[in-house]
Order: sequence, then C-alpha cells, then structure tokens
Amino acid sequence: MKINHIVESQQFTVPFLMELFSRANEMKKIVARGGTKDYENRVMTSLFYQPSTRTRFSFESAMYHLGGKVLTTEQAQLFSSEIQGEHLEDTIRIIANFCDVIVLRHLEAGGAKRAAAVSPVPIISAGDGAGGQHPTQGLLDLYTIFSELHTLDGLSVAFSGSLDQGRTSRSLTYLLSKFSRIKLYFIAPKEMQIKQDMLDHLDENNIIYQVTDSLDNVIDKVDVLYQTRFEAERFPNTNIDYEKYRIDVPRMQQMKYNSIVMHPMPRDIEISHNVDSDPRAAYFRQSRNGLYVRMALFSMLFDGE
Amino acid sequence: MKINHIVESQQFTVPFLMELFSRANEMKKIVARGGTKDYENRVMTSLFYQPSTRTRFSFESAMYHLGGKVLTTEQAQLFSSEIQGEHLEDTIRIIANFCDVIVLRHLEAGGAKRAAAVSPVPIISAGDGAGGQHPTQGLLDLYTIFSELHTLDGLSVAFSGSLDQGRTSRSLTYLLSKFSRIKLYFIAPKEMQIKQDMLDHLDENNIIYQVTDSLDNVIDKVDVLYQTRFEAERFPNTNIDYEKYRIDVPRMQQMKYNSIVMHPMPRDIEISHNVDSDPRAAYFRQSRNGLYVRMALFSMLFDGE
Amino acid sequence: MKINHIVESQQFTVPFLMELFSRANEMKKIVARGGTKDYENRVMTSLFYQPSTRTRFSFESAMYHLGGKVLTTEQAQLFSSEIQGEHLEDTIRIIANFCDVIVLRHLEAGGAKRAAAVSPVPIISAGDGAGGQHPTQGLLDLYTIFSELHTLDGLSVAFSGSLDQGRTSRSLTYLLSKFSRIKLYFIAPKEMQIKQDMLDHLDENNIIYQVTDSLDNVIDKVDVLYQTRFEAERFPNTNIDYEKYRIDVPRMQQMKYNSIVMHPMPRDIEISHNVDSDPRAAYFRQSRNGLYVRMALFSMLFDGE
Repeated sequence: MKINHIVESQQFTVPFLMELFSRANEMKKIVARGGTKDYENRVMTSLFYQPSTRTRFSFESAMYHLGGKVLTTEQAQLFSSEIQGEHLEDTIRIIANFCDVIVLRHLEAGGAKRAAAVSPVPIISAGDGAGGQHPTQGLLDLYTIFSELHTLDGLSVAFSGSLDQGRTSRSLTYLLSKFSRIKLYFIAPKEMQIKQDMLDHLDENNIIYQVTDSLDNVIDKVDVLYQTRFEAERFPNTNIDYEKYRIDVPRMQQMKYNSIVMHPMPRDIEISHNVDSDPRAAYFRQSRNGLYVRMALFSMLFDGE
Repeated sequence: MKINHIVESQQFTVPFLMELFSRANEMKKIVARGGTKDYENRVMTSLFYQPSTRTRFSFESAMYHLGGKVLTTEQAQLFSSEIQGEHLEDTIRIIANFCDVIVLRHLEAGGAKRAAAVSPVPIISAGDGAGGQHPTQGLLDLYTIFSELHTLDGLSVAFSGSLDQGRTSRSLTYLLSKFSRIKLYFIAPKEMQIKQDMLDHLDENNIIYQVTDSLDNVIDKVDVLYQTRFEAERFPNTNIDYEKYRIDVPRMQQMKYNSIVMHPMPRDIEISHNVDSDPRAAYFRQSRNGLYVRMALFSMLFDGE
Repeated sequence: MKINHIVESQQFTVPFLMELFSRANEMKKIVARGGTKDYENRVMTSLFYQPSTRTRFSFESAMYHLGGKVLTTEQAQLFSSEIQGEHLEDTIRIIANFCDVIVLRHLEAGGAKRAAAVSPVPIISAGDGAGGQHPTQGLLDLYTIFSELHTLDGLSVAFSGSLDQGRTSRSLTYLLSKFSRIKLYFIAPKEMQIKQDMLDHLDENNIIYQVTDSLDNVIDKVDVLYQTRFEAERFPNTNIDYEKYRIDVPRMQQMKYNSIVMHPMPRDIEISHNVDSDPRAAYFRQSRNGLYVRMALFSMLFDGE
C-alpha cells in the first residue's frame, strides 16, 4: 500500500491501518529477535524544532531496529539563526539531500503539510503546533487498543484532560471515528472541553458521544480511559478541582476488569503512581508499541517506493 | 594521494582536486546503490562549537553512506564550562581517543590549524570564525561547477553578497585561482566588497577580475553566478538598495542559457523563490554534491593512512 | 559474572575488577583490529541531564566499537519541561522501551540508584551530582594504574585537588581500598580536604593514609599522582597559593622514574602543558582507557543477561 507522507490522522484508511497493525505485530517479533538489517541503507533525519526526547527516541530506535541510521537535531530553528523569518521549505529541500525520510517536529500547525509539499523524501509529522496533530501518536494509541482489547469495533473510549488543545486526543478521535459502534466520552472541566469542530466531525461520522465533567459517572462504562494532562497553567483563574479527574486506586476499582488506562506521557498528577502496578495500566506498554508502529510505518514507506 | 588534515583551501593542489572529483563521481554512483560498507569500522566526530545543522548533516550523512558511525555535539564549548578560557588542544587530544576523524566547527579563525597541530587523527575544518575559511564548502562548490559545466578552465564566475567577510566566497576564490583563463567578478555594495588581500592573491596568480557594484552590467557575461547573503545587519546606517542585487526571474532571462546560479544557503531575499524551478538554479544540486565530495574526502583521508 | 547496574564504586568486588580488566585488555586488541560486530543488535541510550561531552563520547564510542547503536540527549531535563518537578522513574521506564542499556548522567546524588530501582534494562551511572559518584571513571582510573604499573598491590597513590567534593577521587579511593598494602596521600588546602566519611572508610579497611597540604613533601614517594582541579571559585575568600599544588617540569623531576601522573580532565592550571611530553604523563592514555573499560563493561552486562 503506497503512502508518501504522514501528516494527519485523517489520511489513514481502515485497510491502511489493518496493514500497519499486521506489520507492527511482525515488528514485535523482529525486535524480540534483535532487529533486522533489511533497511540498513536507510538514513532517517530527526528534524525537531523543539525537543521531544521521548518521541524522538521512539522514532530513532525504530530506525535502528530496522538496521538504519539517524541524523538528529533538537534545535532545528538554529538553521535559520542568520536569517529573518523561517524558510522551512528550503531547509526540507536541503536536508532531503542527505537522507531517505524526515521526521519533523514543527512549531506551527500545518508545518508538516508545508514540508510534504516540497519534499522529495517522505515527511513524517512528529507533531506540529498546539492544536495541530501528532498522527503517529494516534496510530500507536490505536494499535495499543487493538493489541490489548483485540478489536476496534463497539468500544467505549473516554478521553480526559485539557481536551481543547489536546493533540493526542484529537488524533486518536479522528482514527476511532473510522470504526463501527464506537462510543466516546469527553471528560473535562468546561474550560478545557473538546472543541466543536471535533464534535461536528463525529456527528458527520455518526459517532455517539457524551460530553461531561464527571469522571465518576463514566468510569465504570468504558473499555478505554485515555487520560491526558490537565494544563492548569493555561487556566490560572479557575477553581477547577483536579482531584475529580485523578485516576487512583479507588477509581481503578470502579473500572471494568478488562478495560485499560492509557496516557501519552509524560504524566503529572492525573494518574497516581500507585496505579502503575495494576495490569490495566497500559501506558508503559503503549509507549513500547510506539517502537513497533513506527518500524511498521517506515517499512511501509520504504517498501512502497 | 596522502593528506592529513583539511584546514584551508590553499592546501589543495590541482591533482588533489582532480582525484577528489573523480572519487566524488564514484560516490554519486555508490549512493545511488544505497551506500557502501567499506568504512564501517570508522568513527567520525562532529565537534561543533556552534550549531550548523546543514553542514553537520552533510558530513554525517557522508559518513553513514560509507558505512561509518558518528559521535556528535553542537555545543562543544560546554566541554570547558568548568574552566576559565578554552583548551582546544586538550579537547582534541581527548576526543581523538574515541574516533578516526574529527570534523571541527570552531569559533575563531585558525582554530582548525591549532587542532591539526596536536591531533593524532585527521581534522577537517567545517568552518572556523568570521573571516576564516570553510574549505569543504569550497570543494563542493568547485565540484558543482565542474559537474555542471564540465570544465574549470576559461570560466567567468561572479561572486555577489557581503564579500568582505564571506567565508564561502573566499574559499572558492582561492580554489578557482588555481585554474587557467578564469575571469572573476565581485559584485557588492562598496561597504561589502571583497578585501584587498584576496585581490592581491589574484594578482599574484595572474587572475583577471573586476570589482563592481552592478549585477546588471555583469549578469549576461558569466558562466557561474555565486550568490551569497547580504548581511544587512552589519551595515545599519547605509542606504544600500538590495533590490539591485536580487536574482529574480527577469534577471535570469539575462543570463546565458548554459550558466548556473549557486548559493551556499541558507538564502534570504537575495534569490527569489520563483527562480527555483529554473534548471540553471543549481543550489539544491550544489547541496547534494556536499554529500559526494565529503564521502570522497573521507575515503582519501582513510585510504591514505 | 552477573551484574545488573553500575551505580557506585562500592559494588565492585576484586574478582569483578579482574575480569573487567582482562576484558579491557581484550577490547584494546579488538579496537586495534577495527572493532567487533558482536553486539550489533544493541542500542544504548545516553540520557544526560547535563552536558559532559567527554564522558558521553567515551561511552558512545565504546558502543560503536562493539557494533551497537546510540540514542543520545544532553538535555534530558527537557523531558519534563511541561511538568512541575521531575519524574525520573517514568522517564526511565519509557526510555527502557527503546534500548538495551541506559547511561545516565543525573544532577542529584542518588539519581542512578533511583533509576536502577525501576529500570528493566541496565543503568550505568555516568556521574550523579556533586558529592555523588562517577563509578566508571573510577574503573578506568584503576585500570590505568593496573595497565601502567602492572600491579595494584603495594602502591602509593596521592590525590590532589579540591578533594572535599571530588567525585573522581572518591570513586577511585573506594576501589583502591580493596587492595593490599596501599598507601594513600590526600594533598589539598585544608578547606578542600577529603571528608571524614572517606577517612572512616579507609580506617575500616585498614588502609594507611596521610592528609597533608604539601605536594612537595610527598611527590618523591608516590607511584601515582592523581591530580584533579582546584575549584577555586568555591573558595573566593581564601589565600590559597595554588602554585604550591601545580605540577610542572621541576616537580616532575622529583617524581620517581616509574611513577605516573593522572588527571580525569579537563585540566586547568594544575598541570602545566609542558609536562605533556613526559612519558609519565598518563592522562591522555587514561582517557583512551575509558574506551576499553566501557566496552568491557557493556560486554559483561550483555553477556550476563
């Protein structure tokens, strides 16, 4: 299946997702055997305009386990230190001379699309801007649900956190809306709730959802609780009671025995460390899945050339 | 042909350049085949005292395509954070314990020579200081002219930009002065013109040149127009009309049909983006040539040991 | 011999040290042959919360010479930029998903132990905090003495510098205290002298030592002079005469002909550059030994799994 660039969750079809997950399962076995050398001629560039070590390492480790090599910067904005403004397109066209794929973390929503428009090598967005997307996070999140629960149809998934600007919850919501009989819950204080454009998207796709500020009313109903950070610093003058949204051992006791708790990490206080030992706490396995999904993604990009 | 260190353009002989270009042609084919493993035991260090991601990636990609490995820092000055002053020589002698070649971007003109004086492994300068040199940029620029125009003799080459401190134009001028029947043009506002020491060098080598502030008087005569940035920020109180020096579509129409426009990048406004699609716009191919030339250079250093 | 983590000098037994040194000798030969590919499936992470390019490169070069691959950051604290406080444990559990070993430079004494407590992959401390340890520095220092003098028993070793917070002198002192008939000298202005806890440790191990502020009274007696920096900036209001502690050519003339001078580097004025050409100046060889010892350490960690 041919893909050129990975810039937004909307671009993925269900057949693409199924092939990706099949390959990710394969990659899991390959990693257990110590990796492959099938892509040892490949050079990836991590072109990060801001540091995001976790995401960067996940991509780079994926490339290493495929046998490839890595060029890396976390301060790509210094390319242009001499120059007013920014010439992302020039940078991309030059960097593309040195590698086979560019993993781009940009500061502005839409940066990945601008890059893809001029790049002779595949661009993979590793997140672009607040309110933008982080499509490979969405893919690994969806793969995690699929791996853990063995289906994507008929699930109840709750998102919690400051959802108004949540790049990861946006990306996963787009992906889930492609499946059948999904029910979504958006749990947040009203100031941080999911934006109308996402709800419109769900309406168009006939997805049932509920918007609420009560975790406790919902927690026993969900198969997946996707917790994210509450960016309290953006809401200094509110009286939000963050304890209401905190996942701790008592709240875990209310959850279904075969549900899972996910988090894109890093976490703050919104998941108690006491929860880590609960087998339903899937967030470290979720992070590990990033390795397999990104390996799968690289293999699809390279094989499709 | 044995070389030990790459520190300044003056060190290269014509036979060296011809061998280098022959190897660079070979490297172009090797890259098209996916690289080689001939140098897989080699470790290169990028020791950068200031970021220069473009140059760093070009060297590192060259090393990867040869099969080698890379140690890298863009903040080499932090080596000495604990200590007053700087001990470049100590740093070099220690880093040399861990690698087979050091690519050095230093802040002071002459830094590369100081490093070469004590290093047990080859030093390659990746630029040292304003007014210093950037010899591998000169090599890739010369190779670009050779690849595009198939000769180095009898060419008319114009340099434009703030030439008084232009490291890249200096390095290329030194190299061109080794060839026959070269004619050079230096196009710049008088405040930014090429310095007398370079003109003296050209006089000693019997190179014909013209110093001018008019691009339009020269543009139809040249085989190569080497555009660089006009560092306007160094000349705040002047009334320079930078539009006079800007390469745009109308000016391209005045150029010979088989001429080329080069630029070491990054560019500011001195070349219009509308020019990019003109086949004579060679600057992205020029950047690509950096990969081949640096691979060739590494191979000569390692094979000569 | 099975080891899991490398967090402090106290953990090493004499049999472990002897196996390590035997392997380091082997690694020296392997490096001379261009390295090995025996560990080519292995991925190491350099997780540095502050830059230490020398140490980082030493570990990374070791991994490369074993055939392995490297993920690297010098600004690991930016992981948590979004979050109050620091979640070292979460970071470790996530990074461990992407690699086979983590080399950790942390800012707080005890950071390496915290990391080791939760990590599913081996943690190697590359230094943690002032007053903490730098155990692999101690290992390479001990290996250097062993390589240069062919024994570890019966030696007289002098430490000089600001020993009160000296991480490297602490780590080496712990190691030396495991051997027989060792005599130690601690040479420093009284403000900077070794702390009582170390002397207690030596008393418990029946190690003979002398605390002095006179280099000249001791210099002709020692087999090893381990010079470190005098952190004058921590003692602004003292009248310390640092010239008394400086190793220069006249003082070298007082040293035994078969003694050595070591320094963990970087050096300031405490060793004159004129001393570098003396064959007893072992500090650059010492740095080189870091490569062999770290290769040996990785091989023991991986082989023991």
